[in-house]
Amino acid sequence: MQFSAHQIATLVNGSLEGNPDVMVEQLAKIEEASTGSLSFLSNPKYEQYLYTTRASVIIINEDLKLDKPIASTLIRVKNAYTAFSLLLELYNKMRLDKTGIEEPVFIHPSAKIGKNVYIGAFAYIDKDVVIGDHAKIYPHVYIGDNVKIGDNTTLFAGVSVYFDCVIGSRVIIHSGTVVGSDGFGFAPQEDGTYNKISQIGNVVIEDDVEIGANTVIDRATMGSTIIRKGVKLDNLIQIAHNVEIGKNTVIAAQSGISGSTKVGEKAVIGGQVGIVGHINIASGSQIQAQSGVNRTIAEEGKKWSGSPAAPYNAQMRSQVVYSRLPELERRLEELEQLLLTKELSK
Amino acid sequence: MQFSAHQIATLVNGSLEGNPDVMVEQLAKIEEASTGSLSFLSNPKYEQYLYTTRASVIIINEDLKLDKPIASTLIRVKNAYTAFSLLLELYNKMRLDKTGIEEPVFIHPSAKIGKNVYIGAFAYIDKDVVIGDHAKIYPHVYIGDNVKIGDNTTLFAGVSVYFDCVIGSRVIIHSGTVVGSDGFGFAPQEDGTYNKISQIGNVVIEDDVEIGANTVIDRATMGSTIIRKGVKLDNLIQIAHNVEIGKNTVIAAQSGISGSTKVGEKAVIGGQVGIVGHINIASGSQIQAQSGVNRTIAEEGKKWSGSPAAPYNAQMRSQVVYSRLPELERRLEELEQLLLTKELSK
Amino acid sequence: MQFSAHQIATLVNGSLEGNPDVMVEQLAKIEEASTGSLSFLSNPKYEQYLYTTRASVIIINEDLKLDKPIASTLIRVKNAYTAFSLLLELYNKMRLDKTGIEEPVFIHPSAKIGKNVYIGAFAYIDKDVVIGDHAKIYPHVYIGDNVKIGDNTTLFAGVSVYFDCVIGSRVIIHSGTVVGSDGFGFAPQEDGTYNKISQIGNVVIEDDVEIGANTVIDRATMGSTIIRKGVKLDNLIQIAHNVEIGKNTVIAAQSGISGSTKVGEKAVIGGQVGIVGHINIASGSQIQAQSGVNRTIAEEGKKWSGSPAAPYNAQMRSQVVYSRLPELERRLEELEQLLLTKELSK
Repeated sequence: MQFSAHQIATLVNGSLEGNPDVMVEQLAKIEEASTGSLSFLSNPKYEQYLYTTRASVIIINEDLKLDKPIASTLIRVKNAYTAFSLLLELYNKMRLDKTGIEEPVFIHPSAKIGKNVYIGAFAYIDKDVVIGDHAKIYPHVYIGDNVKIGDNTTLFAGVSVYFDCVIGSRVIIHSGTVVGSDGFGFAPQEDGTYNKISQIGNVVIEDDVEIGANTVIDRATMGSTIIRKGVKLDNLIQIAHNVEIGKNTVIAAQSGISGSTKVGEKAVIGGQVGIVGHINIASGSQIQAQSGVNRTIAEEGKKWSGSPAAPYNAQMRSQVVYSRLPELERRLEELEQLLLTKELSK
Repeated sequence: MQFSAHQIATLVNGSLEGNPDVMVEQLAKIEEASTGSLSFLSNPKYEQYLYTTRASVIIINEDLKLDKPIASTLIRVKNAYTAFSLLLELYNKMRLDKTGIEEPVFIHPSAKIGKNVYIGAFAYIDKDVVIGDHAKIYPHVYIGDNVKIGDNTTLFAGVSVYFDCVIGSRVIIHSGTVVGSDGFGFAPQEDGTYNKISQIGNVVIEDDVEIGANTVIDRATMGSTIIRKGVKLDNLIQIAHNVEIGKNTVIAAQSGISGSTKVGEKAVIGGQVGIVGHINIASGSQIQAQSGVNRTIAEEGKKWSGSPAAPYNAQMRSQVVYSRLPELERRLEELEQLLLTKELSK
Repeated sequence: MQFSAHQIATLVNGSLEGNPDVMVEQLAKIEEASTGSLSFLSNPKYEQYLYTTRASVIIINEDLKLDKPIASTLIRVKNAYTAFSLLLELYNKMRLDKTGIEEPVFIHPSAKIGKNVYIGAFAYIDKDVVIGDHAKIYPHVYIGDNVKIGDNTTLFAGVSVYFDCVIGSRVIIHSGTVVGSDGFGFAPQEDGTYNKISQIGNVVIEDDVEIGANTVIDRATMGSTIIRKGVKLDNLIQIAHNVEIGKNTVIAAQSGISGSTKVGEKAVIGGQVGIVGHINIASGSQIQAQSGVNRTIAEEGKKWSGSPAAPYNAQMRSQVVYSRLPELERRLEELEQLLLTKELSK
C-alpha cells in the first residue's frame, strides 16, 4: 500500500509543505523512521528528530515553528497526534478488512449469521448460534451451542467460546482466549476425592470490551460471570466463575480474580495481581502490579500495593524500612549491648 | 428444555406442594431466580429469599418449617443441596450430550476409535492413537502420534496433546490446554548460547483428573510427568517436566510447579503459587495463594504462606509486624535518642 | 522402533561389552530403566544403579572401572552424556519426522511454501506468507497475511501468528502460543472510557529462538517487538508491545515483561517474575523467581531478588530479619520497658 504526501494531506485535512508527490508505505515513530515512512511530531521532547529523521513525510502541529529547513515533506494539522492516530486506525482497518466465508467451515444449519461478516476457514459455529452484522470470526474459532455475538465484534484465530455465552457488540477478543470454560468447583468427599459441581451458568461480555490473548473467563456455577461495558483485559488473565468486572475497568496481564468477587467501575489493576474470592473491590481502585488483595476494598478511588495489599503510602513506608531491616536489627543489638554494659557496670 | 414441577419432583423423588403443572426452563440461585426458574434452599442463611424469590419451583429440605405461605411450588426432599446438584449434573449432561463424528476431521487410518464417541469437526487424530468409548473430542483438538485416551474422557475445543502421552478415563480437559509440550531444558554452551536437550518422555494423566483452560503440562525429559488420579488443576497453570502431582491434590489458577518436583497427595495449593524444582511437597500441605516455596516441605498437613514460604502462623506474625515497620523504626530512634541524651547528660 | 546393541554402538562410535544382539526400544534413566531400555551413566553419584538396573544396554565412559560383573550390555564411549544426548536428539528427530501437506489445509494462492515442508491438516496460511524450507507447520496453526517464516522452523499445533510478523530459522514455537496480538494500548477519555490505540507494528523473532506453550508476544504499537537470536522463553510468558529481549536470554514460565522494556543479552530470568514497562535490564542480569523489577538495572551481571527487586545479598539479609520480626518487636519492647522502669526508679 503506497500513498502520496498529497493523498495523506487530503485524508487528514492538512496543509502541505514540500514535495506533494513523495510516496510513503509505512508508519513509523520519528526517531525510528526510514525513507518511505510517514511519521508525526507531537511531543516537543522529540523536536530534535525533525532535523535528522529519514521520514519522507511528517505530520506536525500547525503552529510549530521551525529552526531550519527540513528535508521531509511536512503536513500541518491542528493536532498532529490525533491526525496520526486516525491514520493508524485507518491502516489497521485496511489490514484487517476481511469479509466473506471461507472454506471449509462448520456452520450448523440453525445458526444465524449476520450481514457482511468474515468467517475464516476451520471456524466452528454450533447450533442456534447468532452472529451479528460485520462480525469477524477468524480461523480456528470455536463457538458452542446457543452463543450470541453482537455486531462488529472480532474473535481472532483460535478463540473458544463455550455454549450459552453472550458477547456484545464491538468486542475484540484475541487469539487463544477461552470464554465459558467450567468454573473450578468441586465438593470434597470424605474419602479425600472431589465431586465436580456442574457449572451451568454462562459468561456475559458486554459491548466495547477488549480481551487479550490466552486469557480465560470461566462460566458461572449458576447465573453469569459478567464483564461490563468498556472493560479492557490484557493477556493471560484468569477470571473465575461468578466474577463481575465493572464498567471501564482495566486489568493488566497475568492477573487473576477468584470466584464471585465483584470489581467496581473504572478500577485500574496492574499485572500479576491476585484477588481472592467473594470480596468487593470499590470503583476507581488502583491496584499495583503483583499485589495480593485478600479482603474487600470498600473505599473508592484508593491506591493499593503489596501482598497482602495495603494502602499504597503505608506499603511504601514499610517497604523502605524492610530494605533497612539488617541495619535496624544491628541498631537494636547495640542498644541492648549498651544497656547490658550499664547494668553490669552498676 | 422445559419441565413441569411434577416431572422435577419425580426426578428427585420429592413430595410436591403447590401447582404441579408450573413449568421451569432454567436453574438459578434463589436470590437471583426469575419466573420460570427452578431453585433450591439449603443454607438457612438464605431462608428470607423463600418469601421474596420469583422462582417458580423451589427444592427444600423435607423438615423445613415455613413461617408464611409461599407463592412458588415447593418440592420437599431429604437433602435439597444433593437433589439440586443432581439436577445440575443432569442438565449439564444434556447440554453436553454430543455423539457422532462430524466432518471434516482428520483421523489417521491406524487410529482406534471407541464406541459412541463424539469427534467434532476439525479435530486431528494422528497415527496409532487410541480413543476410549464415550470419549468426547471437541473441534480443533490435536492428538499426536500414539496418544492413548481412556473411556468417558472429554477434551474441549482446542486442546493439544503431543505424541506418546497417556490420558486416563473420566478425565476432563478444558479448551486451550497443552499436554506434552517440550520441557524447558537447555545446556549452556561456552559461547553463551544454549543447546536444546531433547525431551523424549511423555505426560501421564490418570483417571478422574480435571484440568482447566490454557494450562500447560510439559513432557518429561525422559520418563513421565505424572498427574495422579483425582487431581484437579485450574486454569493457566504451569507443570514443568518430570513433575509428579499426587492423588486428589488441588491446584488453583496461575500456579507453577518447576521441574522434577514431587507434590504429595491431597495437597491444596492456592492461586499464583510458585514452587521451585527438584523438591518434595508433603501430602496434605496447604499452600496459600501467591506463596513461593523454595525448599522441600517434609512434614505432612501443614499450612504455608509467603514468598519464601514459611509456616502460616509465623508468616502471619511477621506480616503484622511488617505493617508496623515505620512505627518500629521510630520507636527504635526514640530509644537511641533517649540513651544518647543520657550519655551526654552524664 | 527397535535397535540392537551393536547398532547403537556403531551409531555412537563406541566399543561393546556383552551381548551385541540384545534389542532396545526405549531410552530411560538408569534408575528407572526396564528391560528393553537403553540407558547411560555419566554422573558417578548414580554408579550404584549400574549393578541393579534392568536396562538392557548402558552407555558408559570409556575409563569407568567396574567393581563386579554387570548383567547389561555395555557400550564404552569417550563421553557417555554427549553420546546419549545425541541418541535423544536422533530419537526425537525420528518421532517428529513429518513431511508433506495434509488435507484439508487453507493455503492462500499467493503464499510461497519452501521445499520439504510439513503442513498439517487444518493449518491456515494467509496471503503473501513465505514459509522456508524444511519448516514444520502443525495442525491448527494460523499464519496471518504477510508473515515470513525461516528454514527449519517448527510451529506446533495451534500456534497463532498475526499478520506482518517475522520468524527466523530453526525457531521452535510450542502449542497455543500467540505471536503478534495487539499490544495493550488505550487512551483514557474524559468520560472514563478508553479509546483503542491501533497497534500496527509487528513481532520479529530471530533465529534459534525457542518459545514454550501458551506464551503471548504482543505486536508493537509501531515498529517491532523483538526477540533476539538464541532467546529461550518458557510457557505462559507475557511479552508486551515494543519489548526487546537480547540475545541468548532465558526466561522461565509465567514471567511478564511490560511494554517497551529492553532486556539485555544472556540474562537469566526466573519464573513468575514481573518487570515494569519502559526500563532497561542490563545484560547478564540474574533475576530470581517471583521478583518484581520496578526500575532500570544498569549494572551488568548482577543477581536480583524480591518485589520490589533488590540486590540478591541485601534481599536475603532483609528476608532473614523479616522472619524474626516478631522477636525483634519483643526485644524492642523489653528495652522500652527497661528504660521506662529506670526512668520511674529515678
